[in-house]
Amino acid sequence: MTRRVAVVMAGGSGERFWPLSRITRPKQFLRLAGGTRTLFEQAIDNIAPLFPSDHVFIATGKHLIGETRAAFPALPSENIIAEPCKRNTAGCLALAAAYILARYGGDGSDILMAVVAADHAILNPQRYRQILDTALTIADHSGNIVTLGINPTRPETGYGYIEAKRDRISVPGIPDDIPVFPVERFHEKPNRETAAEYVASGRFFWNSGMFFWRLSDFFRELTEVSPDIAHTVTAIAGFLSRGDAEAAANCFQELPNISIDYALMEKTRRVLVVESDFGWDDIGAWDALQRTMPKDESGNIAVGDPVLVDARDCIVYNEPGPERCAVAVVGVEGLTVIVSEDAVLVVPRDRVQEVRKAVEELKRRGASQV
Amino acid sequence: MTRRVAVVMAGGSGERFWPLSRITRPKQFLRLAGGTRTLFEQAIDNIAPLFPSDHVFIATGKHLIGETRAAFPALPSENIIAEPCKRNTAGCLALAAAYILARYGGDGSDILMAVVAADHAILNPQRYRQILDTALTIADHSGNIVTLGINPTRPETGYGYIEAKRDRISVPGIPDDIPVFPVERFHEKPNRETAAEYVASGRFFWNSGMFFWRLSDFFRELTEVSPDIAHTVTAIAGFLSRGDAEAAANCFQELPNISIDYALMEKTRRVLVVESDFGWDDIGAWDALQRTMPKDESGNIAVGDPVLVDARDCIVYNEPGPERCAVAVVGVEGLTVIVSEDAVLVVPRDRVQEVRKAVEELKRRGASQV
Repeated sequence: MTRRVAVVMAGGSGERFWPLSRITRPKQFLRLAGGTRTLFEQAIDNIAPLFPSDHVFIATGKHLIGETRAAFPALPSENIIAEPCKRNTAGCLALAAAYILARYGGDGSDILMAVVAADHAILNPQRYRQILDTALTIADHSGNIVTLGINPTRPETGYGYIEAKRDRISVPGIPDDIPVFPVERFHEKPNRETAAEYVASGRFFWNSGMFFWRLSDFFRELTEVSPDIAHTVTAIAGFLSRGDAEAAANCFQELPNISIDYALMEKTRRVLVVESDFGWDDIGAWDALQRTMPKDESGNIAVGDPVLVDARDCIVYNEPGPERCAVAVVGVEGLTVIVSEDAVLVVPRDRVQEVRKAVEELKRRGASQV
Repeated sequence: MTRRVAVVMAGGSGERFWPLSRITRPKQFLRLAGGTRTLFEQAIDNIAPLFPSDHVFIATGKHLIGETRAAFPALPSENIIAEPCKRNTAGCLALAAAYILARYGGDGSDILMAVVAADHAILNPQRYRQILDTALTIADHSGNIVTLGINPTRPETGYGYIEAKRDRISVPGIPDDIPVFPVERFHEKPNRETAAEYVASGRFFWNSGMFFWRLSDFFRELTEVSPDIAHTVTAIAGFLSRGDAEAAANCFQELPNISIDYALMEKTRRVLVVESDFGWDDIGAWDALQRTMPKDESGNIAVGDPVLVDARDCIVYNEPGPERCAVAVVGVEGLTVIVSEDAVLVVPRDRVQEVRKAVEELKRRGASQV
C-alpha cells in the first residue's frame, strides 16, 4: 500500500524578521499571520487532517532541534530531522528523502512525499488541503514531479515564477476546478516590468516551493539531472539504516549548497504545475504583514497595543509578553516599528529588506541580540 | 553684610521628554545636554562657584524630595524646599522667599536672591556666571527686579520675549560688554511672523525665567502689584519661623496657580533686563537636542550606540544602562526614536510636542510607564 508522508522544511535564518527573529528563533517560530499560533504551528495544523502524525517529518537545523521538539510534543521525536549544516533546499530534501528511505526500506516506489514550508502563510487552509491532496494524486498517477503554482495577484519581484505550457492536461479523478499544466520553464525573480508581463500573460505562476513526488520518481529524475546528489542520498540512506549517524552527517556535508529548484526542478522535464488559488504568502519580510494581518481604519497593523497618534499605513509590532513595553508612534506614515524584549527596529515599510544591514552591523559588534 | 542666595526652581513635569521623563523623574534628572551629568547636576555645578552650598536652595515638588536629596548629598537637606502642591512659578518663589526670610530673619534687605532653573542648558557656564554676578550687582545697586534677556538666535515661537527700552542704562562697576536696559514690556509666545519681527528689531530678548532681586525689593514690588500673594508669603514665613509646617502648607495651597511673570514681572515698572549671550536653551522638547548635543556627519544625534543605516537628521536616544536594548534605525530622515527600559517613542522631529497626546492616552489606559 502507498504511504503518504509530508516533509516540512523548517530551516530559515533569523535576519529578515529581526528583532523578533534570532539565530535560535527563526521566522517559523513567530506569530506573523494573525492569531495566537506561530507560522510553524499553523503549517503543521494545516496538513494534520491529511497525514497521520507519524507520517509528518520536519527537517530543520540541528541548533533548532530542541525548540522544534518542544513546539510539537505530539510528533514522534525521531521524525524531526536534524540538518548537520546548511545545504539549502536540495540538501534538506536529499537528507529527508534518505531518512524516509531508511525508515521504510524499499526503493521508495510505495511512498508519496509532499514537501511544504514551515514559515509561509496559507489564507484558505481548506482549499490548500484540497489542492495538496490533488497534487499527491497527480504525482501518484503521472509519475511526474508536481509543484504548486500560485495565481499571482500582483507583479511581485520577490518570487520566482513558473511558466506553464499553454494547454492544461487532464488527469483522471481530480476536480475540474484545479487546472494542471506541464511546466515550460522556471524563471528567476524578475524585475518589475517583467513581473507585470508575467502576471498579464495568465501563464505564469508564483513558485511556491512546494513539491510532490513518488520517492522512486524523485530518485529517477535526480539521478538523471544531478547524479552526484542522488548518489549521496543513497549513501546517506545506507548509513542511516545501519545506524551510523556520524557517517551520514559527514556524507551530508559533501552535498553542494544549492536549491532544489537548481538541482532538480529546472532541469527535469517531467514537471507538472497545479494552479493554486488558496491564498499564499511566503512572508518574506515585515511588509508582508500588510497582506496577512488585519488593519485598522488608518491602514495600520498594530500588535501588542501600541499607542498610535495620527499614524497611517504603519506596521507596529510590540512583542506581547508579561513585561511588555509601552510603545507610542506619533505622526508618521508608512513606517515599521518593531519592539522586542531587548531590541527595537525602525524602518520605512518599503525598505524592510535593509534590516539585514543592521543585523550585520550588530553581528560585527558582537551584540547579543542577533 | 549682604548674603547672596540662589533658588533653583526644580518643578517640571514628566510629559515632554517621555519616555525618559516620568512623573517621578522629570526633565532635570535627564542627561539632555551631552556628557554624563544631568541637567540638574549641571545647573548646580554652574552656580557652585558663586554661592556656598548652604546658600543654595532647591524648590521642588514634595514627591521629588527624596530623589533630589539623593542627587545632591552635599547640599544641606533643609535647603531643599518641598512644594506641597503645584502653584506654578509664583507659588514656587513665594514659598522660597518665605523659607529664606524664616531662615535668616529680618526684612530681607540684606539678602540678594538669584532665581535659576534646574532644567535649562547653559552652553557657556563661565560667561553665565559673569552675567549672574553682574545681575546680582545691578539688583543690589538699583533696587530693581533684574531679569536676563537672551539674545535671540532664531525666530523661536516657543519662548516669551522681553522688549527692552531703546537706551541702555549705565550701572557703576559692571562690565561694559554687558548691556542693561529698562524693560518696556513682556510679550507672550509669538507666532512665527511676529517672532521674526522681534528678532529683527534688536530690542527683543528671550525671556529666560531667571530673576535677581533684593528680597525686600521683591516684597515691596509684590505688595504693590499682587498684595494678596505678598500677604500670604508673610504668613507662610511666620508659620515657618514658628516651626508650624502644616499651617505653612495649608497657607501655600491658597496661593493662585499663576506664573511669576503674570504675578509680578509684567506688572511692576521697576524691571531691568541684562542682555545675555552665554548660550541658553530651555530644552523644551526632544528637538532641542539638535541644539545641545553633538551631531554625526549625517546630522544625527545618537546616544547609547544605536545602529544607524542611511539615517539623516535623526535623534536616536537609547537609554544607557546594563540591560541596554539593541536599537536599529534604517532609511529614515528627521525622525526621533527614544528607547527607555520599558517604553519606546517614535515621532518626527518636528512633531515632538505631540508626545503629550501619547502620554495622555497611556494615562487613560492606566499604563505604568508614565
